[in-house]
Amino acid sequence: MKAKIDHVGIVVHDIQEALKAYQAALGLPLKEIVAVPDQKVQVAFLPVGESNVELVQPLSDDTGIARFLTQRGEGIHHICFEVEDIEAVLAQLKEHQVQLIDEVPRQGAHGRVAFVHPKAMHGVLVELVERSH
Amino acid sequence: MKAKIDHVGIVVHDIQEALKAYQAALGLPLKEIVAVPDQKVQVAFLPVGESNVELVQPLSDDTGIARFLTQRGEGIHHICFEVEDIEAVLAQLKEHQVQLIDEVPRQGAHGRVAFVHPKAMHGVLVELVERSH
Repeated sequence: MKAKIDHVGIVVHDIQEALKAYQAALGLPLKEIVAVPDQKVQVAFLPVGESNVELVQPLSDDTGIARFLTQRGEGIHHICFEVEDIEAVLAQLKEHQVQLIDEVPRQGAHGRVAFVHPKAMHGVLVELVERSH
Repeated sequence: MKAKIDHVGIVVHDIQEALKAYQAALGLPLKEIVAVPDQKVQVAFLPVGESNVELVQPLSDDTGIARFLTQRGEGIHHICFEVEDIEAVLAQLKEHQVQLIDEVPRQGAHGRVAFVHPKAMHGVLVELVERSH
């Protein structure tokens, strides 16, 4: 499978505070901060090589991201792999009886995405994206 | 700063079990499995683009990795950024009063490495590596 790490998602209480560490101190560039009203989050993209660090701040208490933050605290939330053919990867995962959150890809901001269940991936929430270039 | 994600470290109970998900089902290639007796762990490297997924299995109960596994369960343990000049990045982190685990770089398997404290990085254990090519 041809793939790369698209991004690593990190849940934080306050993007501006987190940028002091990741942008100012560590030196990653900030590409943009965008609100995603659908998911009630704000996201900062910091490119690093062919990947991105994504800082995610919940904008409401009634979301999965907000619950993650309350229960587990700040930290890495998921890892997203860009794949060439998301249907083929999902078919292969199903063939191996891997538990999926999304049985079929859904439309994301940058292409079709699907989440794999963290139980199946040994505690890691895995997102797949097939980018529409 | 010119940087890339060198690897994402995932702690697992059993590398062979985890490979069923990451190699067989997800389709990542397996480069090698190596024992690191110093750290009492076994590590599998699965290249993905310019980065690697690193599966880490503790080989003893008296290590930080083993305690992480007992306390938090399987999951992402750290993210490692490859940087060009590790001294410069550490100096910049110190200038911003970021708490470090390693004040000076130490020799790792593939170059000089230093860990940044997860409290300073909003819950993320960050490793820096300057590879000796």
